Amino acid sequence: MVEGIGLQVSAERLLADLWTLAAIGGRPDGGVDRVAGSVADLEARRWLASRVEEAGLEARMDETINVFGRVGASSGPWLVLGSHTDTVPAGGHLDGAYGVIAALEALRTLHEAGHPAASAIEVVSFFDEEGVGSGGLIGSRALLDHPHINDLSGYLEIHIEQGPRLESTGRELAVVEGIVGVERWDVTMHGEANHAGTTPFHLRHDAARAMARLIVRLPELLQAVDQDMVGNVSVLSVAPNAPNVVPGEARCVVELRSFSAEMLQSAARRVRDAVRESCNTEGCTFAMAPRRPIAPQPMDQTAIKFLCKACELSERPWTRLVSGAGHDAGALAARIPAGMLFVPSSGGISHSPHEHTDDRLLVQGAQVLLTGALLMLEEQRQQGNR
Amino acid sequence: MVEGIGLQVSAERLLADLWTLAAIGGRPDGGVDRVAGSVADLEARRWLASRVEEAGLEARMDETINVFGRVGASSGPWLVLGSHTDTVPAGGHLDGAYGVIAALEALRTLHEAGHPAASAIEVVSFFDEEGVGSGGLIGSRALLDHPHINDLSGYLEIHIEQGPRLESTGRELAVVEGIVGVERWDVTMHGEANHAGTTPFHLRHDAARAMARLIVRLPELLQAVDQDMVGNVSVLSVAPNAPNVVPGEARCVVELRSFSAEMLQSAARRVRDAVRESCNTEGCTFAMAPRRPIAPQPMDQTAIKFLCKACELSERPWTRLVSGAGHDAGALAARIPAGMLFVPSSGGISHSPHEHTDDRLLVQGAQVLLTGALLMLEEQRQQGNR
Repeated sequence: MVEGIGLQVSAERLLADLWTLAAIGGRPDGGVDRVAGSVADLEARRWLASRVEEAGLEARMDETINVFGRVGASSGPWLVLGSHTDTVPAGGHLDGAYGVIAALEALRTLHEAGHPAASAIEVVSFFDEEGVGSGGLIGSRALLDHPHINDLSGYLEIHIEQGPRLESTGRELAVVEGIVGVERWDVTMHGEANHAGTTPFHLRHDAARAMARLIVRLPELLQAVDQDMVGNVSVLSVAPNAPNVVPGEARCVVELRSFSAEMLQSAARRVRDAVRESCNTEGCTFAMAPRRPIAPQPMDQTAIKFLCKACELSERPWTRLVSGAGHDAGALAARIPAGMLFVPSSGGISHSPHEHTDDRLLVQGAQVLLTGALLMLEEQRQQGNR
Repeated sequence: MVEGIGLQVSAERLLADLWTLAAIGGRPDGGVDRVAGSVADLEARRWLASRVEEAGLEARMDETINVFGRVGASSGPWLVLGSHTDTVPAGGHLDGAYGVIAALEALRTLHEAGHPAASAIEVVSFFDEEGVGSGGLIGSRALLDHPHINDLSGYLEIHIEQGPRLESTGRELAVVEGIVGVERWDVTMHGEANHAGTTPFHLRHDAARAMARLIVRLPELLQAVDQDMVGNVSVLSVAPNAPNVVPGEARCVVELRSFSAEMLQSAARRVRDAVRESCNTEGCTFAMAPRRPIAPQPMDQTAIKFLCKACELSERPWTRLVSGAGHDAGALAARIPAGMLFVPSSGGISHSPHEHTDDRLLVQGAQVLLTGALLMLEEQRQQGNR
């Protein structure tokens, strides 16, 4: 058995820090407004640095105002544990914040116990993961181009699932196998605006109806490609947007997500076919313009292995799954071994004041993160990486 | 035969006036911007009054800036011929304007010929029929409450069809049997906003999809009630309106039109059922709020009879139909006998710079309007209404 596996995180300290952080930008409805760069976001970063220092550790911010904490005078390489403390507007108190506080708690526990692994760990709160006013993942992407990336041996992140799969199958933990790729198209359908009172149905070219056909078909169309694939149609608009005018133009954004680049490609072809068929049925034409795609990002196989081992050691029900949402771990996986754990999201809800995970599961998750980190570091030590 | 039936309108004068009027608020693309109350609209009203006076007639504006023209010192009652000179933004040169110029041409022709019927006719350009910033029909509705309504024996209006039915069946004229009633509902569908990457399809409550199901079904649903009924779904919006969020709310306006109040009622029930079914399928709820309905408005049977007779005398193909669009004649029908003629709209297009009707059909329409007015006046004379 690896030394330190028995060490217990402090449930009290973990939960107290979570609630203190939740109050920074806290809303009367229990939600959190801590958009990246806001006064509350900056206050949370200063507060985090103060909590790092109160634990006898060294805090610093880099040029991107990512907040780091580690044992003073430790020399690396470091296994980074963390997530982000920014939120979406009217977000919840767990998305990101939980991963940061769990990371800090894991490092504090090792540091208090005088465990040598403490010197090989760094905690982080990345800047602007959510990307409310940007593309997101700003802090983690900036780190990829920063010299500090060369001092890092890997990255582990724990996060709420932001979906219902764990809860609905009675699992308490998940090891993330990878993060889906995302493709988005701006779709414009062109019909013919006309008087809705004087134009018989069979002579219309109703662009809203062509769009509606696509929206209705999308799920079955994607699931024919891959049962696990998801997609979305949103950002809808029609023109003219008047009750008495047949819509002559309809716009929407079609989003596709899959862990398989091939499935994404296959689904994209089918979506284009469905757009064409929907438009043909209504006598419309169309244009599709791709937005910048995000490639599927597998997590590191060694990280997956030891996070699975850590879940096993918890003796609680767990599973492996693919994350349908993007995370800082996805950005870092491009340069260093990265791994991720999920805890359940009550009701599958996130980006909402109603985000919730039971305290027991939050504490357990931090414990498994600590165990996973110890297993990773032991492996690296044995591989002579230190 | 009624005296004066052989009198010919001046094609040249009619078309010249139409093009002069089209230049007031005229656009480089051939369209017209003459929204009610705009500088161009007011200029067009002054120009019309000057054309009335140049014909040796008396022009005046009432408190609603409806422009009237008639033989000076005539004493009524008057059969009013007219329409409106305001347009929608980027509208066409015929919608409304044609009916006003045709009316003026009919009166000028009689006046020049010294025909006694000239003294029993008034021409009008109503204010703000289109209702860009209002409910529309402002001038004609105001006349209903004006003492002048008691001086009027009836109202005849000629207008472009604004639909494709005449052209597509090779007819050159139509007598309007009535104007459809319009019902509108604001429909809101409530689902659950959720992360589009992490929420499997079967656990979603996608309000946009519920709305899309309604949009796809509407035509067949209405045509099951009445083959001639039309409807429209527009004014679409979803919230949150983000590519990566399953829409939690969708809003639209559903419009129904029919000449039958019973059919409207029956269709409204079916629409409500379809909204419920669409929402049930997607696990959503809904609310429907009616807007102020417009009742179906039949045209006067005597006016219909003599307009049909006038069409027959033209020896050109004509038909009877129900107007799917609202008109000043619909407002006036609430107080005085009203009748309407349509000429074809090329391609069914209206409210567009591409509005077009062949000159021959425009001249022929004015001629039939003149004939119809003479037949109406002769009938009224025989009935001792004068």
